[in-house]
Amino acid sequence: MSSPIPVAVLGATGSVGQRFISLLDNHPWFKVVALAASDKSAGQKYSQATRWVLDSPMPDYVKDMVIVPATTEAVQAKIVFSALHNEVAKDLEPQFAKAGSAVCSNASSYRRGEDVPLLLPEVNANHIHLVKEQRKNKNWSGCIITNPNCTSTGLTIALKALDDTFGVKKVFAVSLQALSGAGYPGISSMDIMDNIIPNVGNGGEEEKVEWEPRKMLGKLNNNQIDLADIKFSAHTNRVAVLDGHTVCTSVEFSSPPSDIQTVLQTLSSYQAPAEAKELPSSPQPVISVREEADRPQPRLDRLTGKGMSTVIGRVRKDSILDIKFVVLSHNTIRGAAGGSIYNAELLVNEGLL
Amino acid sequence: MSSPIPVAVLGATGSVGQRFISLLDNHPWFKVVALAASDKSAGQKYSQATRWVLDSPMPDYVKDMVIVPATTEAVQAKIVFSALHNEVAKDLEPQFAKAGSAVCSNASSYRRGEDVPLLLPEVNANHIHLVKEQRKNKNWSGCIITNPNCTSTGLTIALKALDDTFGVKKVFAVSLQALSGAGYPGISSMDIMDNIIPNVGNGGEEEKVEWEPRKMLGKLNNNQIDLADIKFSAHTNRVAVLDGHTVCTSVEFSSPPSDIQTVLQTLSSYQAPAEAKELPSSPQPVISVREEADRPQPRLDRLTGKGMSTVIGRVRKDSILDIKFVVLSHNTIRGAAGGSIYNAELLVNEGLL
Amino acid sequence: MSSPIPVAVLGATGSVGQRFISLLDNHPWFKVVALAASDKSAGQKYSQATRWVLDSPMPDYVKDMVIVPATTEAVQAKIVFSALHNEVAKDLEPQFAKAGSAVCSNASSYRRGEDVPLLLPEVNANHIHLVKEQRKNKNWSGCIITNPNCTSTGLTIALKALDDTFGVKKVFAVSLQALSGAGYPGISSMDIMDNIIPNVGNGGEEEKVEWEPRKMLGKLNNNQIDLADIKFSAHTNRVAVLDGHTVCTSVEFSSPPSDIQTVLQTLSSYQAPAEAKELPSSPQPVISVREEADRPQPRLDRLTGKGMSTVIGRVRKDSILDIKFVVLSHNTIRGAAGGSIYNAELLVNEGLL
Amino acid sequence: MSSPIPVAVLGATGSVGQRFISLLDNHPWFKVVALAASDKSAGQKYSQATRWVLDSPMPDYVKDMVIVPATTEAVQAKIVFSALHNEVAKDLEPQFAKAGSAVCSNASSYRRGEDVPLLLPEVNANHIHLVKEQRKNKNWSGCIITNPNCTSTGLTIALKALDDTFGVKKVFAVSLQALSGAGYPGISSMDIMDNIIPNVGNGGEEEKVEWEPRKMLGKLNNNQIDLADIKFSAHTNRVAVLDGHTVCTSVEFSSPPSDIQTVLQTLSSYQAPAEAKELPSSPQPVISVREEADRPQPRLDRLTGKGMSTVIGRVRKDSILDIKFVVLSHNTIRGAAGGSIYNAELLVNEGLL
Repeated sequence: MSSPIPVAVLGATGSVGQRFISLLDNHPWFKVVALAASDKSAGQKYSQATRWVLDSPMPDYVKDMVIVPATTEAVQAKIVFSALHNEVAKDLEPQFAKAGSAVCSNASSYRRGEDVPLLLPEVNANHIHLVKEQRKNKNWSGCIITNPNCTSTGLTIALKALDDTFGVKKVFAVSLQALSGAGYPGISSMDIMDNIIPNVGNGGEEEKVEWEPRKMLGKLNNNQIDLADIKFSAHTNRVAVLDGHTVCTSVEFSSPPSDIQTVLQTLSSYQAPAEAKELPSSPQPVISVREEADRPQPRLDRLTGKGMSTVIGRVRKDSILDIKFVVLSHNTIRGAAGGSIYNAELLVNEGLL
Repeated sequence: MSSPIPVAVLGATGSVGQRFISLLDNHPWFKVVALAASDKSAGQKYSQATRWVLDSPMPDYVKDMVIVPATTEAVQAKIVFSALHNEVAKDLEPQFAKAGSAVCSNASSYRRGEDVPLLLPEVNANHIHLVKEQRKNKNWSGCIITNPNCTSTGLTIALKALDDTFGVKKVFAVSLQALSGAGYPGISSMDIMDNIIPNVGNGGEEEKVEWEPRKMLGKLNNNQIDLADIKFSAHTNRVAVLDGHTVCTSVEFSSPPSDIQTVLQTLSSYQAPAEAKELPSSPQPVISVREEADRPQPRLDRLTGKGMSTVIGRVRKDSILDIKFVVLSHNTIRGAAGGSIYNAELLVNEGLL
Repeated sequence: MSSPIPVAVLGATGSVGQRFISLLDNHPWFKVVALAASDKSAGQKYSQATRWVLDSPMPDYVKDMVIVPATTEAVQAKIVFSALHNEVAKDLEPQFAKAGSAVCSNASSYRRGEDVPLLLPEVNANHIHLVKEQRKNKNWSGCIITNPNCTSTGLTIALKALDDTFGVKKVFAVSLQALSGAGYPGISSMDIMDNIIPNVGNGGEEEKVEWEPRKMLGKLNNNQIDLADIKFSAHTNRVAVLDGHTVCTSVEFSSPPSDIQTVLQTLSSYQAPAEAKELPSSPQPVISVREEADRPQPRLDRLTGKGMSTVIGRVRKDSILDIKFVVLSHNTIRGAAGGSIYNAELLVNEGLL
Repeated sequence: MSSPIPVAVLGATGSVGQRFISLLDNHPWFKVVALAASDKSAGQKYSQATRWVLDSPMPDYVKDMVIVPATTEAVQAKIVFSALHNEVAKDLEPQFAKAGSAVCSNASSYRRGEDVPLLLPEVNANHIHLVKEQRKNKNWSGCIITNPNCTSTGLTIALKALDDTFGVKKVFAVSLQALSGAGYPGISSMDIMDNIIPNVGNGGEEEKVEWEPRKMLGKLNNNQIDLADIKFSAHTNRVAVLDGHTVCTSVEFSSPPSDIQTVLQTLSSYQAPAEAKELPSSPQPVISVREEADRPQPRLDRLTGKGMSTVIGRVRKDSILDIKFVVLSHNTIRGAAGGSIYNAELLVNEGLL
């Protein structure tokens, strides 16, 4: 890269915004030129307006940046990372796309859009070409590309590796999700200490987990995605873990593997598509397979591959479907800010910026 | 009851032993006459030898009782509650049964014995008559009766209510289990803070959950149990909860209900068999159905019905099998000591002591 | 009591309000006739408007009560328990006192009022007679009486027992405070998991702990309180505990005890004044002294004496002052709702209603 | 450094041993040539014998190293880092010193030895010259040098900065200590969830905190240390935090500062002695002063300066002594393994190896 690409973060003061800022510190391609947040923060220095909640310190480069309002006038950047709430994102993201920015969004507002790529580069990098259709349809010079829900993320990566070889037909997924997935302040300490909450987002999370993987595992044909023909049943829980979503998964295949060793081999040898393989945020490895009886565990394994790898363990026969296993993924890195950045890198790499 | 029945607790100093002692305080039928523990505790006063871990205080009646060794000489009681570890239980329980005691055991050693009742009185009270066969086979004046694994407990009660009406065929069960299930000191704080462990008992727990309900939901024919023809797939997790096991459950039926309302009705109206309905430890209600979006929760609901009720919530359609729901059961009350005591009450009530 | 005294709860839907409702269930003297809350809850059934956060279930008696606004028109009761926020309390409590209700308040707004009793009946029951002065000054038929801050509560009770015999001169107090002290939702789970917060209420808590005990340990002379001449240094921390405030305390005396045994004896034999000794909420015992090396602990000891007792342990020599020890008190029972109810009982008993 | 200095770790499989291994990965001066542990681990590969509990992964360099017994025959290294339990350390460390190794020990066995340096290089680097006396006395070619208890560590560094300017006379210290300080498995999850334990090491920790700083703040005169004339009162608590000990501290001075600003300035400008200032493990900064109302917090601040810095906040007037503040220090990095390594670097730098 000759000169860095100017990028902005919308929703910069929230917990996902903070993760964007942290991951963009010293990014080889991108340079943060604007931080936008709600009107009550605009005008203040970032360090004053923000209650920093990450355990790595606030990067120096943002401390004195003055927060601007989230408008296309105030924020001018080739790439705009959106950590906005869904309702706000719904209004603002198209404005930025129209104004010429590539919006890389973590919000769920446009994930189901027919011409909006829902992307995990290691899974469906080619879906990014849907932005051409989007630009044509909307007459935008910019675009909107999205990353999936944090719980769908690791699950879909695991399923993709298996689907290529064995053909996934049915999936049971029960999640144990981290607190940071609810944002800050999110879950009250009085609700989760000595407790679990057997529902996330009042059922909405389960709908996402049952639908989003079908789009990402679907095929791009004639500028549209054919949803994968897979049945999902999801149950989502909140547990007392800071970061890292765990998903207990059972899968039925059309061509079941003959043994577990083949499954382990298939998972651990899975590679991202060529165009997504050597980007700055490409997970190394895509999938880390653990063979211990009690792994993956969120606290010990969530930072595998700098938080971008998907960690899978306890692969074994399932007595109803074919196999079962446990998937772990860092929900605010791979499952949120890191995912959006990886998407942006793919966009640049494919010459679509 | 004219005069109380003398009972003993084996393994009295451990966490399940403590729960026995707590639940037997002021029991209307039983009087604790002996507390047995390992040789290193024998000879000491109970209050000296025990690190009490319950949040209700140690009952006065045990404080000055002197612990005896777990031998048939030292322990003479009509009913012997066993909170022994499995290996120890395997040796000792038959000795007590031979010596004439009714051993009501929480250990897993004999749960699979062909002539050993595996009992949840609200589910399969009639299986208790298997002790006659056992006495004949072994030439014992006493007997061994067992309660299931704590995770199987709530699950089986829920399934029984449904099986009677809709015929259960397949069950997916993913547990989020409490720390107290591992005994004391059990799980290291360093292993569970900001973490979950995606395996309980190194796979052994899952085997139990996949087998035990089949025995309890099976039929007693000609002095033997025909295992229920149900397929189970279990995944068990440990979470940072003190008491109360949660199980996310999906079920397929032979005669599926037409709507969720019917399922709720079936669950909430479930009654224990007549002989198990009005015993001192009978759960009131057997099943408590919660209709809020985020219940049951272990901290808030585990003491429903004094910890003896099974609490079920989030009953809804499953997109692969027929319905799914969440079951909560107090693992050291209904799922351990309380269950053994309830079994003993049934034994007395059926005139089998 | 011939017929029950009608009482009301202001701020009934919050966490302290819930504790009032729970403790007033089946109270021998009082009957809840009105539940008041903010305008957005008024008009709804209590069970609909309230997110119940206690682990004991919502009492049946409140479920169908319709919440009223916190006005003197809507709430007519001899005794009004106030669980209002301080700013709201400041406005509303005098209105109720003027309208003839005895306001028993947990808010801090009037604790420093010169004619307002700040009461722990087992410490300074006689201060209640200050209400006569208050009524005269304000020309009220009702009155306002207050209970101290939850951290001051246990500390002051411990100090009172010692002060009577040894004369307290200086006190170092470092607290480890429970989450419920911050109300609901209060502390974010992301702030306290794997963490402590070394400040409560941004310094305000420390001011209260350094002042309130001086008023309660002071003397009532000529209708005013002479503050006790004791120096306090307080440091307050928030820790990951649901209920129960722990205070590490070091004390200097004017007549130091010759040995620890005398201190233990003094503490455990402490009695409430006669008029406060046999009320329905009188703690039994006032002080529970623990001699184990590692007690009191919040989870194990907070419910001593139904949560009304003060629990003290680790009494030992201090190498700078005279002695040091650990005090534990249930912050939402003895330190909040239970304290206000105990105050109300004293008011009735003294014929001041 | 031309060629790396060979070092060994005794007690390599435990949690402090793991921290040594992690911190020695890519150390610029040292190369780990031997890992020693108990007989039951000896002969196994490190990766097989060890339950790794850190959240950073096990470094590759140790995975295939074969564990040797902790004998002077099996372990030959210029520097031997000791993570041994105290009783074992007492026997073994002198053997290694005699055999010519410089033992840098985290055990408490020899901290009080008259000719044993108890070292925090940023505090009392010059005390290291006591090893000359030690070698003479014992006729050893090696030596034993020690680092203090983890709770004394941050406290002593804070006090040193203040002592130089204001003269420390009295210190109250109340700790909130992390779980990792108890080793692994250490504290049972059932003891600490929703709880605190108001004692660490059954009083032993408090003795250490009241004595060790006096040695380190003492003066080296004629080959012996004159203990500093400071009075300490310590109370130690265990809380639900993984890493990072917090100490609430009040201090009296002989020349009290006129204002808080002077104290802040004194703390933040404190420098290590020249010989300890630019070693590989020198903390940068020695002291990080936080001015927010609610810092330091263990989860957010423990990794300041790669876990080697001491973090101080809430500096304010004390109403009994002169000032009070909060000190945070990473207990297994600065307070254990990192401290021993820093000591070893000082030894090398001073030409005493």
